[in-house]
Amino acid sequence: MAERDVSGAVAEPPAVPASELFSEERSAEVVAASFAGTRDARLRRVLTSLVRHLHDFIKDVELTDEEWAAAIEFLTATGRTCTETRQEFILLSDVLGASMLVETINNRAGDGTTESTVEGPFHVVASPRRELGASIAEDGRGTPCLVTGSVAGPDGRPVPGAEVDVWQADDEGFYDVQRPETKSDRNLRGLFTADGDGRFRFRSIVPRYYPIPADGPVGRLLAATSRHPNRPAHIHFEVSAPGYRTVTTHLFVAGTPYLDSDAVFGVKPSLVRDFPLVDDPVRAAQAGLPNPFRTVHFDVVLSPLDGDGGR
Amino acid sequence: MAERDVSGAVAEPPAVPASELFSEERSAEVVAASFAGTRDARLRRVLTSLVRHLHDFIKDVELTDEEWAAAIEFLTATGRTCTETRQEFILLSDVLGASMLVETINNRAGDGTTESTVEGPFHVVASPRRELGASIAEDGRGTPCLVTGSVAGPDGRPVPGAEVDVWQADDEGFYDVQRPETKSDRNLRGLFTADGDGRFRFRSIVPRYYPIPADGPVGRLLAATSRHPNRPAHIHFEVSAPGYRTVTTHLFVAGTPYLDSDAVFGVKPSLVRDFPLVDDPVRAAQAGLPNPFRTVHFDVVLSPLDGDGGR
Repeated sequence: MAERDVSGAVAEPPAVPASELFSEERSAEVVAASFAGTRDARLRRVLTSLVRHLHDFIKDVELTDEEWAAAIEFLTATGRTCTETRQEFILLSDVLGASMLVETINNRAGDGTTESTVEGPFHVVASPRRELGASIAEDGRGTPCLVTGSVAGPDGRPVPGAEVDVWQADDEGFYDVQRPETKSDRNLRGLFTADGDGRFRFRSIVPRYYPIPADGPVGRLLAATSRHPNRPAHIHFEVSAPGYRTVTTHLFVAGTPYLDSDAVFGVKPSLVRDFPLVDDPVRAAQAGLPNPFRTVHFDVVLSPLDGDGGR
Repeated sequence: MAERDVSGAVAEPPAVPASELFSEERSAEVVAASFAGTRDARLRRVLTSLVRHLHDFIKDVELTDEEWAAAIEFLTATGRTCTETRQEFILLSDVLGASMLVETINNRAGDGTTESTVEGPFHVVASPRRELGASIAEDGRGTPCLVTGSVAGPDGRPVPGAEVDVWQADDEGFYDVQRPETKSDRNLRGLFTADGDGRFRFRSIVPRYYPIPADGPVGRLLAATSRHPNRPAHIHFEVSAPGYRTVTTHLFVAGTPYLDSDAVFGVKPSLVRDFPLVDDPVRAAQAGLPNPFRTVHFDVVLSPLDGDGGR
């Protein structure tokens, strides 16, 4: 103790206002206060809420040192898995339901307007423009299917000339860009313009369910929690028209496996449709499809942008 | 509509139990249910709580699509910044106060035992074993300082032979491993064994405050929120003895800049000490230091492992 005697007094902890320092009780408050100088008010609000919920989570489970270290390792491995063509953080957001929640909050449907769902990672190229009635199944494989539908406003009035962008997996559950051997980024993709009555139609095949990429950290998370990585069969739609809110959604195949356990929580009951079989050579010839074939119909209802009926 | 007439009826959305599907209201519940099959009960509990708080956060701020995309981008950039010697996710955890919260929850002090703080990223090598009284300042630069202290149990009984591991930044705010030009991983590091009375002493220099690495995504986050990246000056301590809980902590220099705004929230009032100046040639000679020199004293109180007084 001699060292301290020399200075004339025992060193007392200096007066640092404890209320401004970190404590278990006030942790979120103290960290939130550090963002007080943020000029962007929205950023400040988002970070304050993030910190509050993050700290609440840590306190709720009393996260251990080992679990914290495992979380750091998991995030690092997730980052390492990201490439130009693989977005593991989006997958993580997807399997935690965060993507669907953001999508749903930002596209609340009402008045019978078509519900949205996640865009997914496969809308990577502009879809090739095609004539109404054309086939998007360029490789000719799979169960033929005639897709018909309409685009209207909530009042039932058709939206002539609406743009209908579609893309889907093939009958083995792969998108064209996932098949490097075919070098196609046009197969099972199409951009259509609805006719004067807001109607559209095109030929395709019935898509198959498929697994999200499961060979990375997110796949290991699913395995550790006994969750499968599959998505039920669906066709992606993005429908837009001047004066209306663009809707990004899926058409799900009724009866497809995993309809009640989509790995990314994308299913909404209003988006499921039967794909009934048609066995009629005359109608098959009219549609330009082999007999028998499947059909599906999708009436899309767009929400006016300004809430007054649009255009 | 003709296509549907063929199948005999308009296709109605099939009966998928909506209660099991995703909705804004039940989002966290539905996602949590997907973890029901997790065999590890603790993992299930942690993920369920994580999902609940994550969804609460998204709902609280009504996160926009653009903000979600910015978050994905930020996490991806954070992952890309991680290397063998740089852990950007730990930095992120640090500046959000998550590291300190986990540290604090897992090392609740009581009975006057020494409070813990974050270990930080610079305890990367085993500290060189040194004799009591030795100098850890191998390069001889900086303001000389004599560090003395003791290790005891909550009852005041000394802990003879306790291991005292110390490491610190130099007088320019760098740890040895951050100075590739010197190739040292021994400078300002030392592992001491307390004497029969639980006392320790060593020679060093007064550390300087320093910035955490601010040239990555976490640095950009700090800049966007007008936060500085600095940590107040401190000496790291890790003190252990058989029968006692190891304490990982800092000794902060009273009066150092940033004491009330540590970028990682590591400061606790009980860990701040004066470093009084001693101007006494005789005592300087005794200590093996030039005159004048600084001193600091740190009495460490360890918590018995089994709560009954330890050993």
